Amino acid sequence: MSLLVVGSVALDSVETPFGVKDEVLGGSATFFSTSASFFNPVKLVAVVGEDFPEAHVQFLRSRGVDLEGLIREKGRTFRWKGKYGYQLNEAQTLDTQLNVFQSFSPKLPESYRNPTHVFLGNIHPELQSQVLDQVKSPRLVAADTMNFWIQGSRQALLQTLKRVDLLFVNDAEARQLAGEHNILKAARAILGMGPSRVVIKRGEYGALLLEREHIFVCPAMPLEEVFDPTGAGDTFAGGFMGTLATSEKLDRDTLRRAMVMGSVMASFTVERFSLDRLRELTQREIHARFSEFKRLTHFEDLGPLEG
Amino acid sequence: MSLLVVGSVALDSVETPFGVKDEVLGGSATFFSTSASFFNPVKLVAVVGEDFPEAHVQFLRSRGVDLEGLIREKGRTFRWKGKYGYQLNEAQTLDTQLNVFQSFSPKLPESYRNPTHVFLGNIHPELQSQVLDQVKSPRLVAADTMNFWIQGSRQALLQTLKRVDLLFVNDAEARQLAGEHNILKAARAILGMGPSRVVIKRGEYGALLLEREHIFVCPAMPLEEVFDPTGAGDTFAGGFMGTLATSEKLDRDTLRRAMVMGSVMASFTVERFSLDRLRELTQREIHARFSEFKRLTHFEDLGPLEG
Repeated sequence: MSLLVVGSVALDSVETPFGVKDEVLGGSATFFSTSASFFNPVKLVAVVGEDFPEAHVQFLRSRGVDLEGLIREKGRTFRWKGKYGYQLNEAQTLDTQLNVFQSFSPKLPESYRNPTHVFLGNIHPELQSQVLDQVKSPRLVAADTMNFWIQGSRQALLQTLKRVDLLFVNDAEARQLAGEHNILKAARAILGMGPSRVVIKRGEYGALLLEREHIFVCPAMPLEEVFDPTGAGDTFAGGFMGTLATSEKLDRDTLRRAMVMGSVMASFTVERFSLDRLRELTQREIHARFSEFKRLTHFEDLGPLEG
Repeated sequence: MSLLVVGSVALDSVETPFGVKDEVLGGSATFFSTSASFFNPVKLVAVVGEDFPEAHVQFLRSRGVDLEGLIREKGRTFRWKGKYGYQLNEAQTLDTQLNVFQSFSPKLPESYRNPTHVFLGNIHPELQSQVLDQVKSPRLVAADTMNFWIQGSRQALLQTLKRVDLLFVNDAEARQLAGEHNILKAARAILGMGPSRVVIKRGEYGALLLEREHIFVCPAMPLEEVFDPTGAGDTFAGGFMGTLATSEKLDRDTLRRAMVMGSVMASFTVERFSLDRLRELTQREIHARFSEFKRLTHFEDLGPLEG
């Protein structure tokens, strides 16, 4: 099936306790599409500036990503600079330069307008809505958002959420959006805003999938080396949506497999800076790690209760 | 088989966002033995003061706990006062009155000296060692500890750890004990101190079991109502050790079942104040929640890799 992503393509400068990288490839649409490309073709909508290295374009192309929707504008590419402490769960943003992203208004090429699956990366909720205005009845619309929009563009976000089937948020964002501390209650409140499914991302603790009558608790891989968490959430979403896009079914087994695959893909991304681990990743490694997740979490059910 | 616990029997005063309770039944040995009693008989070693309500003694007796080792000394019972915010993951200790616990020196009755399984609750590591001096070759010695001993009695703790097979700690304690932030590396460092197994408790995120060549990622139950996390860790240990004590085997399936059972029992404890939820808990409810854990976490492995 066909998978569309809109989001940022950026140059990231990242500092972690394990090193520093300047102006490496980043952005939500980049991590998402690279991750999803291991499972299903992806059409990307984003904007870059004149300074965006051609090598990065070539890399995305080498992953089979459709770049007809990647436009190059006059000016500089979107830049993000962040720093992580040993906790590694939350980045401290040091600098954000929107540059060409400031006036970004997503225009979908004709060939992009019939996707079965849509992922609205973490951009202004009005831009997310503009994308939905241009697509014809997709089967599944998923979206990401963040504290900045939840606080600053709440009404626009609530409008967009009415058109979203599945929302990806982390614990803190779910709590902020719902105004409720308990994570299950927060998720249920979000289910009342439009989406029929919520994925709560919990970093090193895994993720939860919640529907009205169904919960899946998805583990994360315990890792000895976490180099750089940047892009983990979008990589998760890419593995998740890429997996769904390969299946006609949207039943619970498929959703759960997609969750674990999201977690598998994110576990690779954080092992190196930027997209470096994904650049050399093989289907065999993905498959092996999925099985490792199974081994790490499997337990036998009890027999019937005696007496 | 026979399960021995040494630890505190206390009167807790607890404040959470959901209410306040004064001088209710608490203490590590109390939560542990009540939880374990659903699976295996327990022998308890602890001290209380003259003011300890007889009703609490009756309750422990009603759970089949052997109280020959519960001594009553002149003076007041150990008291702990704590407060939780909405985060609910960590208590703020407002007051600790050791009282009769200050001069506690565990003496095991003759009938206690041949346990197969021992749980050393969170008390001074020298007292933990004293208990081990009095028992004859148990199959499994497990221990709990805390930041107070890790920082203040490190040498004594390291001596005790050489005699411990399995250590229960939370994330922060593991990091502090090992001097290592990454939780896997911290666990491996602890495996170098004596124990052949470490259980890392992560509150609402579940727990990890680590052996040199084996990891199990155990979920926690997502709960809409968490009233009072006090005793969750000891209840976990009680479900875990109680389950192990019913089995001749100590293989991975058994250890994993014990982990999930610990998580099941802890999920009940936090639903009410003190031990209130455990007072009315039934085998049927335990069984049903174990199966719910299975449903919440199950996913199908992928088929063989094509091509």
